[in-house]
Amino acid sequence: MSDQHRTVPVRRIGANSHAFNDFVTVEEPLELRIEHYQNGRLQQSSVSVTMRTPGDDLDLAYGFLLSEGIVDSFSNVETARTHSSEATAPSSDNTVVVRLREDCNFDPESLLRHFYTSSSCGVCGKVSLAAVDVHIPRRPASRFRIPSKFVATLGDKLRQRQIEFERTGGLHASAVFDRNGAIVRLREDIGRHNALDKLIGSYRDSDVAELREHGLLLSGRASFELLQKAAIAGIPFVASIGPPSTLAVDLARDQDITLIGFLREDSFNQYHGDRVIHD
Amino acid sequence: MSDQHRTVPVRRIGANSHAFNDFVTVEEPLELRIEHYQNGRLQQSSVSVTMRTPGDDLDLAYGFLLSEGIVDSFSNVETARTHSSEATAPSSDNTVVVRLREDCNFDPESLLRHFYTSSSCGVCGKVSLAAVDVHIPRRPASRFRIPSKFVATLGDKLRQRQIEFERTGGLHASAVFDRNGAIVRLREDIGRHNALDKLIGSYRDSDVAELREHGLLLSGRASFELLQKAAIAGIPFVASIGPPSTLAVDLARDQDITLIGFLREDSFNQYHGDRVIHD
Repeated sequence: MSDQHRTVPVRRIGANSHAFNDFVTVEEPLELRIEHYQNGRLQQSSVSVTMRTPGDDLDLAYGFLLSEGIVDSFSNVETARTHSSEATAPSSDNTVVVRLREDCNFDPESLLRHFYTSSSCGVCGKVSLAAVDVHIPRRPASRFRIPSKFVATLGDKLRQRQIEFERTGGLHASAVFDRNGAIVRLREDIGRHNALDKLIGSYRDSDVAELREHGLLLSGRASFELLQKAAIAGIPFVASIGPPSTLAVDLARDQDITLIGFLREDSFNQYHGDRVIHD
Repeated sequence: MSDQHRTVPVRRIGANSHAFNDFVTVEEPLELRIEHYQNGRLQQSSVSVTMRTPGDDLDLAYGFLLSEGIVDSFSNVETARTHSSEATAPSSDNTVVVRLREDCNFDPESLLRHFYTSSSCGVCGKVSLAAVDVHIPRRPASRFRIPSKFVATLGDKLRQRQIEFERTGGLHASAVFDRNGAIVRLREDIGRHNALDKLIGSYRDSDVAELREHGLLLSGRASFELLQKAAIAGIPFVASIGPPSTLAVDLARDQDITLIGFLREDSFNQYHGDRVIHD
């Protein structure tokens, strides 16, 4: 966790003015490169530079590739490694190189098109729910359901688990919870998309199909892109502390993802779905 | 303002469960295209697709072009127009086409490189504060200073002005304030980068140099990219409700931008600068 914050001198101004050293969330660029075979030879392409909080960088890369639909399975990745590149900060590991398997169907031109037009939003040039649907594999139906009394506890549990968040106030969290409302895994990052990618990528060593029987908890708002990443990863239930956007609601309906917002101690809002069991 | 929210059916679950219609922030894609002259002929390039809340779309485009360093002056733009494109949602104006002046120095290849590697973070492939510095024009020194008692009122004023935020809880705000702590202009968007771009772009019809003698107020956290946009627009003072990141603090020091975070009713934190007048 030591990479996640740095102390900086701060002057508190107010009734009790004083100088002190405070924790600030670390933000550093991470470049993602893909090595892929073309006519039997290895080619390397720069895929993206994202501003992230260091840590779990391989998970971030794996999660990004899957949740953006660049690979349709973690098994398409042959190797992944971090290294320091002079192109970014000189003193830290700020590049991840992912080598795809030779039998993986990968077209760098489509990637170029994808990132060129999608920026941070995860949408293709042609934005429609039908286009999103193309990237979402058919899966067995999820049996995930959760009693409303457990949903109501999720906000408090997230705040308790966000020790790092308390320290700097600058980290978003994404967490996986089970049908008893227990948080089983949590990842944090200065970027909410990165936090979710790290969480999804962390399932590369276990079974990403587990996500089909769990819920996703978001510390902030539920945007279209976060719903899209959840949908591609097969997550059937998304609960957020903040509100959803219109396009997030639309995608939840289209993909039948139960969508909860405004998680409070004594209430929450349900925008779509039937996976909440009412007591 | 009517484009900024849509009502959706919601089920409130808790002690007082009921169904109602609630306002949700609209999120829709906006594609930005640039028309530029090459060997005397007009060429068109797709620059980005961003998820934004509709409204002030021309301001968003102008602000984006300036704050990302694609043009170095609003006067480089000959015309800008919105139109509906089938490539995105069919029912709304979701494309902005900006035509650059023939004498504007614009290289679409550099743009491709820029966006290809920068994603949402506004950094080039080669990320360093020195690289950022290249994009920041030399300007006359700013005389902007503000008494600490006025800084302390900014958080409350922003909340009061964010009527739209109160309605959906889903909009970020960027605002310009004067040396008396009065908010003189405010823009909102589901994306905080967009809110700032709309604000900066709104100065295209007046004088963007005014920003040199004002402060910027951010509803959320102060990230590297927001500081970078502020620096490129010449803003000498940034105050945020939330905390800054390490890279934001570094950039503030490098560009001598006074940086305030954790704006509370009775205190705030100063991370860099000497533009606060202490009573």
